[in-house]
Amino acid sequence: MTLAHKYLGIAVMAFLAQCGLFASDETKAKAPIMAEVLSNSTPADWRPLDPENTLYMELASGRVVVELAPEFAPNHVANVKALAREHYYDGLAIVRAQDNYVVQWADPNAEKPDLARKIQHARKTLPAEFDRAMDPKMPFTPLPDPDAYAPMAGFSDGFPMARDRHTGKMWLVHCYGMVGAGRDNDPDSGGGTELYVVIGNAPRQLDRNVTLFGRVVQGMDLLSALPRGTGAMGFYEKPEQMVPIKSIRVAADVPEAERSDLEIMRTDTPTFRNLIESRRNRHEAWFQVQAGHIDIANVPIPVRLRNSGGSRK
Amino acid sequence: MTLAHKYLGIAVMAFLAQCGLFASDETKAKAPIMAEVLSNSTPADWRPLDPENTLYMELASGRVVVELAPEFAPNHVANVKALAREHYYDGLAIVRAQDNYVVQWADPNAEKPDLARKIQHARKTLPAEFDRAMDPKMPFTPLPDPDAYAPMAGFSDGFPMARDRHTGKMWLVHCYGMVGAGRDNDPDSGGGTELYVVIGNAPRQLDRNVTLFGRVVQGMDLLSALPRGTGAMGFYEKPEQMVPIKSIRVAADVPEAERSDLEIMRTDTPTFRNLIESRRNRHEAWFQVQAGHIDIANVPIPVRLRNSGGSRK
Repeated sequence: MTLAHKYLGIAVMAFLAQCGLFASDETKAKAPIMAEVLSNSTPADWRPLDPENTLYMELASGRVVVELAPEFAPNHVANVKALAREHYYDGLAIVRAQDNYVVQWADPNAEKPDLARKIQHARKTLPAEFDRAMDPKMPFTPLPDPDAYAPMAGFSDGFPMARDRHTGKMWLVHCYGMVGAGRDNDPDSGGGTELYVVIGNAPRQLDRNVTLFGRVVQGMDLLSALPRGTGAMGFYEKPEQMVPIKSIRVAADVPEAERSDLEIMRTDTPTFRNLIESRRNRHEAWFQVQAGHIDIANVPIPVRLRNSGGSRK
Repeated sequence: MTLAHKYLGIAVMAFLAQCGLFASDETKAKAPIMAEVLSNSTPADWRPLDPENTLYMELASGRVVVELAPEFAPNHVANVKALAREHYYDGLAIVRAQDNYVVQWADPNAEKPDLARKIQHARKTLPAEFDRAMDPKMPFTPLPDPDAYAPMAGFSDGFPMARDRHTGKMWLVHCYGMVGAGRDNDPDSGGGTELYVVIGNAPRQLDRNVTLFGRVVQGMDLLSALPRGTGAMGFYEKPEQMVPIKSIRVAADVPEAERSDLEIMRTDTPTFRNLIESRRNRHEAWFQVQAGHIDIANVPIPVRLRNSGGSRK
């Protein structure tokens, strides 16, 4: 940023402040509270997970459910599913838990040629899928507020994303629970054998630096509450600290009776826009000041047992 | 926000984008990486914790160190210290761990008149200290980038804060590790008997709705990795799930040999401004795209053992 741009930024901020964009006391138009949005929702406001684009990671402590995003990272999604289907992940482990950052799972023996898990049909690495071309046919619910890291942020089919009309690109963004494919310094060195999930404050500086391909929709607490690793970058230093992964399966390959029958609130509806508004200005009795603003990492995407009528979050 | 303001916001965003404020590809001016900033820092870039404004919460798993912010919440700081000095907290418990939100500690028997811990000299409730008047004499290091929730954000003496020249107010903001005093719906119903710490994505909507008075500078992982409560809002449902608090002490009351000899990077120095820059544009070899931006919740405040020369974070 040049000095001129910096001063421009300050001038613009002063202008926004004058216009009341930050003067939350002036933005008390009555909005619903989230509990009302949920209770007033109809079955059409929810959609089931697609079993072909859902992963189950089974830990001793329970199941982590990941929704995949083939529209944003088709090759990574296909490869992770291929790895799951050849049972690549079964018996591997969570090897890293860095506080306020990420939990990561991988082959603990990846660096030992004799012991490393062999890939049968899937690929070890793939070209990066950091962003993709904007597609006007894809649903997009923009946030009404400016995003700090991108020209515009919003939601597409249940995923937090950003886009830039200037470059014609859109990309998934690093919010809590987002799942990506770890890589080395070569941008094309990831592929799905090392996966991570965000467990802390949204590390938006990672956006467009690493391929995101999914989001944890249930079971985050099985990952976020793991003991932090004491090694550099939160890696576990002893094998016995690692958390074994019993299996990772594509939901479609799991007998129907054993699936997690979840549904997610659709993000392309008036109901979801009401939900966003309910979080921009909080009218629960406890709140004294409405922020008049929401950032993408603070918008919840409700999930519940299918046909339960009860929200799970 | 009126419709006119909303469109204005979009226009301003487009303008900023044109100017390259979000076009990170255009902002690759070479900046140091954080490791260089730390290794090049001098003793004058660090300050010790003031024992009179430091709390130690002792858990079976270790010590949590909280730095207090008397400049922002003098009455709450004084009352929490008074509570600690009459041993009010000793034997109470962590009663709540809500995923991606807060951990809270309190008297598990607060609602039972016969069993509730009695306050001796401190106060049960205090007038809210949600914000305070700006003071040009206080150090303030602004972030160079716009903040989503306030006209300007930055750091004062080690604390993340925001301010508004229009109202003449400044306030601490809800970043990871910030500590506040829980309250009921009455804004003046908090006081320090129920405390919380942010363990998830910065819940900035809470800013100016609740009194923040400190920040955890060491031991966050002892709180953030606790099992999540399964009751409403993450409360533990069974007494045996609660985590006992052995004691909370003012560091000045602890024998010097038993204190945590930490020092914090000063936030009013060229070194800290370099650190901010090192996080706005990441020049480590791994990064392909620089964000050209940082939000306040993503700026680390380094802490280390005093005179160690080695960073602890």
